[in-house]
Amino acid sequence: MTDDALVIFTPSGKRGRFALGTPVLTAARQLGVDLDSVCGGRGICSKCQISPGYGEFPKHGVTVDEDALTPWNAVEERYKSKRGMAPGRRLGCQAQVMGDVVIDVPPESQVHKQVIRKSATQRDIVMDPATRALFVEVDEPDMHEPTGDFERLKRALATQWGVEDPLVDLGLLRRLQPVLRKGEWKVTVVLTKGNHDNRPRILEVYPGFHEGGLYGLAIDLGSTTIAAHLCSLADGSVLASSGLMNPQIRFGEDLMSRVSYAMMNPGGDVEMTRAVREAINALAVSIAAEAKIDPKAIFEVVFVCNPVMHHLLLGIDPVELGQAPFALATSGSLSLDANDLDLGNIHGAARVYVLPCIAGHVGADCAAVALSEEPGKSEEMVLIVDVGTNAEILLGNKARVLACSSPTGPAFEGAQISSGQRAAPGAIERVEIDPVTKEPRFRVIGSDLWSTDPGFAEATKASGITGICGSGIIEAVAELRMAGILDQGGLIGGPDQVGTPRCVPEGRTHSYLLHDGSAEGGPRILVTQGDIRAIQLAKAALYAGARLLMDEMGVDTVEKVVLAGAFGAHISPKHAMVLGMIPDVPLDKVISAGNAAGTGARIALCNVAARDQIEAVVHDIHKVETAIEPRFQEHFVNASAIPNAVDAFPELGKVVTLPEVSFNTAGAGSEGRRRRR
Amino acid sequence: MTDDALVIFTPSGKRGRFALGTPVLTAARQLGVDLDSVCGGRGICSKCQISPGYGEFPKHGVTVDEDALTPWNAVEERYKSKRGMAPGRRLGCQAQVMGDVVIDVPPESQVHKQVIRKSATQRDIVMDPATRALFVEVDEPDMHEPTGDFERLKRALATQWGVEDPLVDLGLLRRLQPVLRKGEWKVTVVLTKGNHDNRPRILEVYPGFHEGGLYGLAIDLGSTTIAAHLCSLADGSVLASSGLMNPQIRFGEDLMSRVSYAMMNPGGDVEMTRAVREAINALAVSIAAEAKIDPKAIFEVVFVCNPVMHHLLLGIDPVELGQAPFALATSGSLSLDANDLDLGNIHGAARVYVLPCIAGHVGADCAAVALSEEPGKSEEMVLIVDVGTNAEILLGNKARVLACSSPTGPAFEGAQISSGQRAAPGAIERVEIDPVTKEPRFRVIGSDLWSTDPGFAEATKASGITGICGSGIIEAVAELRMAGILDQGGLIGGPDQVGTPRCVPEGRTHSYLLHDGSAEGGPRILVTQGDIRAIQLAKAALYAGARLLMDEMGVDTVEKVVLAGAFGAHISPKHAMVLGMIPDVPLDKVISAGNAAGTGARIALCNVAARDQIEAVVHDIHKVETAIEPRFQEHFVNASAIPNAVDAFPELGKVVTLPEVSFNTAGAGSEGRRRRR
Repeated sequence: MTDDALVIFTPSGKRGRFALGTPVLTAARQLGVDLDSVCGGRGICSKCQISPGYGEFPKHGVTVDEDALTPWNAVEERYKSKRGMAPGRRLGCQAQVMGDVVIDVPPESQVHKQVIRKSATQRDIVMDPATRALFVEVDEPDMHEPTGDFERLKRALATQWGVEDPLVDLGLLRRLQPVLRKGEWKVTVVLTKGNHDNRPRILEVYPGFHEGGLYGLAIDLGSTTIAAHLCSLADGSVLASSGLMNPQIRFGEDLMSRVSYAMMNPGGDVEMTRAVREAINALAVSIAAEAKIDPKAIFEVVFVCNPVMHHLLLGIDPVELGQAPFALATSGSLSLDANDLDLGNIHGAARVYVLPCIAGHVGADCAAVALSEEPGKSEEMVLIVDVGTNAEILLGNKARVLACSSPTGPAFEGAQISSGQRAAPGAIERVEIDPVTKEPRFRVIGSDLWSTDPGFAEATKASGITGICGSGIIEAVAELRMAGILDQGGLIGGPDQVGTPRCVPEGRTHSYLLHDGSAEGGPRILVTQGDIRAIQLAKAALYAGARLLMDEMGVDTVEKVVLAGAFGAHISPKHAMVLGMIPDVPLDKVISAGNAAGTGARIALCNVAARDQIEAVVHDIHKVETAIEPRFQEHFVNASAIPNAVDAFPELGKVVTLPEVSFNTAGAGSEGRRRRR
Repeated sequence: MTDDALVIFTPSGKRGRFALGTPVLTAARQLGVDLDSVCGGRGICSKCQISPGYGEFPKHGVTVDEDALTPWNAVEERYKSKRGMAPGRRLGCQAQVMGDVVIDVPPESQVHKQVIRKSATQRDIVMDPATRALFVEVDEPDMHEPTGDFERLKRALATQWGVEDPLVDLGLLRRLQPVLRKGEWKVTVVLTKGNHDNRPRILEVYPGFHEGGLYGLAIDLGSTTIAAHLCSLADGSVLASSGLMNPQIRFGEDLMSRVSYAMMNPGGDVEMTRAVREAINALAVSIAAEAKIDPKAIFEVVFVCNPVMHHLLLGIDPVELGQAPFALATSGSLSLDANDLDLGNIHGAARVYVLPCIAGHVGADCAAVALSEEPGKSEEMVLIVDVGTNAEILLGNKARVLACSSPTGPAFEGAQISSGQRAAPGAIERVEIDPVTKEPRFRVIGSDLWSTDPGFAEATKASGITGICGSGIIEAVAELRMAGILDQGGLIGGPDQVGTPRCVPEGRTHSYLLHDGSAEGGPRILVTQGDIRAIQLAKAALYAGARLLMDEMGVDTVEKVVLAGAFGAHISPKHAMVLGMIPDVPLDKVISAGNAAGTGARIALCNVAARDQIEAVVHDIHKVETAIEPRFQEHFVNASAIPNAVDAFPELGKVVTLPEVSFNTAGAGSEGRRRRR
């Protein structure tokens, strides 16, 4: 028997010889094995759980005896009885090496856990958040060695965790002395890495070992909606996702109307800044309540947003974004105190990271999509569209990535639509119209049943049928076109022309009655001519932006389309193509990426290195400015028609035969009559 | 004729050959010659003025022709006509080298001017302030290169001044866009070096070339008085010096009574913090008004203060400083935003530097004295006493420096003295008492005449004779002792004992009538028995502290005494020794250092490298804690007597013969009578 032993860690395969009696945690640290610990090996935090293997390991060339580790001890017993521990697990700080041994580090004991697994071909995101908790024991003050309490805390962080010279704010210095004494010189320090300054920063000091978790918010601040994910900073899990309407809507529905509001009303920018910050502050409280955590345990917020939202969030007058050359006050990423943004409901020392903007019209939301979807690593020519009130569009592959922004307006989000509403229970989200009977069926959010299925009325009783959301209106318009109810110019035919009483007169035009709930006291849900126009404008803007990038790239087709945004997650690719929102590609090459901007924000929240990466990515993206590009207008005009779906999308030809309909309505002249074909 | 020429700079002696046509400023920069420029060579700032020399320079081996530089040009003419320029001066950015030339850089054109010249044996302080102004031209925004305005400003700073990656706060980002446009993309950036974080920080951006200066405050925050110097950050000159009473006095006269106030009154520390910050804020405005500058041009504040003031300034509850082991919340130096201290009257982005504390009872004020007086570089064993409400005492030489603090109380500052007042016009500051007649004469602040001189009444008419300040009461007590009016125990004799009607009964004791102004409606200024006791306690505390350090050092005598503090500047060394305040040394070895703490603060304001130096100095000082040292009590008791001046200070024996007086007063017993010897 020798006085050292071989220790092999799996899955890393790292191995080394250690003196008998070495704690497994110590061996792991010396080998650089990714084994977590908050308490620094004091048997408090249980983060260092390991699974020793026993018996023959021919692959590793060792046989592990039952007594390869010191026996289960009182610290482990106490922890197991209080908190529970999976069978076969040991605490790495308690179990000491007594013979050759193979130690498995389960995923939950790794600091750098994988948390956001992107689709098969893409990378995994591992946990490496900026903020983490460290337990330290601090030397007590001594009159003969008269350093301050903070200086001794710093020394403890340096010697026990290798953390050098952290920054601290005055607020924490004020509270430090009672906390150290309450914790009897043992404290849990919440520390954040600086990605802008090079020094770590102490955000909080809790007395003793702090059991509570640390949390972060990933916020996609859109013109219409504010969407947030509340994430654990320990394992990246999303504890709650929540959203609310951007209260700035009362100052203008789209970006340019908000810029105008700021230009026309002195102090208008300040008003809008206050409104959005208050909303975010309220959202932090409600999402924390949903996840049953204290909002004061939220230590980080990552924001992605378009440039106008970016400036209004930061309190910068967006006036320059309303006129050429659309100069951003700052395009780089920002690391701020949450207090700078008046986010008083979360932790008082919380930090904010704002992703960089790409250009005056292409924001941090687009940067976040690029971080999430990585067009710059794609072999195929991929078009990524993130549809919100503005559409962010990326086109590219390994060789080159282009970006632009297109002012779609809020129609795709259900706004400016007569029966429009945001995606919530009761909203019609899927629509089909029988091309023969012209009768619709639909599904509403909250139920998997179609409106023609038995039990539908019962299933939707709670929510009712309240309106139509973005994906619903797109499907409705596309289905109307495919059913021959809508002509290429976007006109809804009259009941006689189309042959269905669902086409009802509405002033000089017609609307299509999708659902009449008036008998049960519910709404009549119609698709009006105005709705069609709103969708036509939105889709033309989106398509024109994509075409402009394709021109710039010198390509006529793309190989893949990624639909991002909450909207992109629900939209049917088939209907999007019927409508002419996106260029034609095979259906299986249209992928929904979900809320890619939100995912990008989560990545930046969970992995601090991704923040450096996004700066590089943004630097390499070439931006195309739609607002000054004559070809954009040209594409826009050309794209307002709703194409003959059979031509545009041959696969559909197998399913339906589109009648060659075309409806005309007189202008608002003296005749004032709708003419029929 | 060659196509380059020799350029020699004086006084540095740096030399090099440069292509004909090279601007002198460019040559200076390439040689590392210390020639100032704010505008970067654009002929705007005139900081780069030089004095070319012509004729024979045998020492340098060159002859300089009249046409060694390009002729006086229009830029120089315009500057001279607008602002004036000394004869023979040129602008270094305009004059180009056309032949061998000797260029003198006058002191005012050096960036690193000498500004604080310490006494002969000591070092000079050169200007190297943390904050300076830089003029830059920023690229205009371009839609095809969509970086933010701030990013282009950073690029300008990097390329035009070599400033890399500065920090900026959100407030400035908010203002940046209008400023850049107002300045037509030319701006003056106020930039500060980070001594805590490693990155420079932009404090302000002015449109165009900013003519106004940058200023800093060096503040000595004492328990009783707050003294400030307003300094130019360009040349270190002191534009105004001003002080006011510390308004915390209403919460307790000395440090420990303020700590008690904080302990006994919940929120008491917050009240005291608010009071002192408001006073500093007001002082900033009044001192700026005195110097006729805008207080918003104050970009830096350096604070020195004792530990209790330090904590109360920072808003830290000082309770731990009131009990062993006297733990400071933080002992290191601090770099803060002025906003963190609610100093809203100076520039909104101004920075604050607080010198480090040495120990729980030995503060940043003592550190500042050490920075100014450098005991650690002294060949002689030097005792430095900085007398305020607490005395900071340093003892040492090259080998070792000790420090302690001693609770003298405010008597030396004229507080707790019956007719005491702060040093201001009308206060008696010098006293002599004739040992034969027992009659006094005195001088008051504001006049050089003695009270017995002709014209004295006229000279003091404006101020009146209002009271007695710290130096006055010390001289009075010492003179009373030397005149035989006071015995060794500190008792004032009665009129019969002493032989002067100026000794007047006051309860059971006597007072000495120094001045009776009642006939003119002025006060009667007496030295009471209570005044004597207050001075005895104060001087005993001071002496005991010095003795304790001498014990610790293992020495019985010192070679030099430095009296620091506003008080130290006015006190007579002779009287201090008669009183037994300081150990005996030859009179010419007692030096007044003026307000050494304030000087230390000025040094840290004018020279950023001194801030690193002080951290090292503080680290090397060994602190002795008086509060727990039994020998301190022993020394204190022994030092309360007023020594027989003839023994203590033989030189005095030649001047006066002290009568062997001793007076006794009965305790407050039933007799209630004063017994006479």
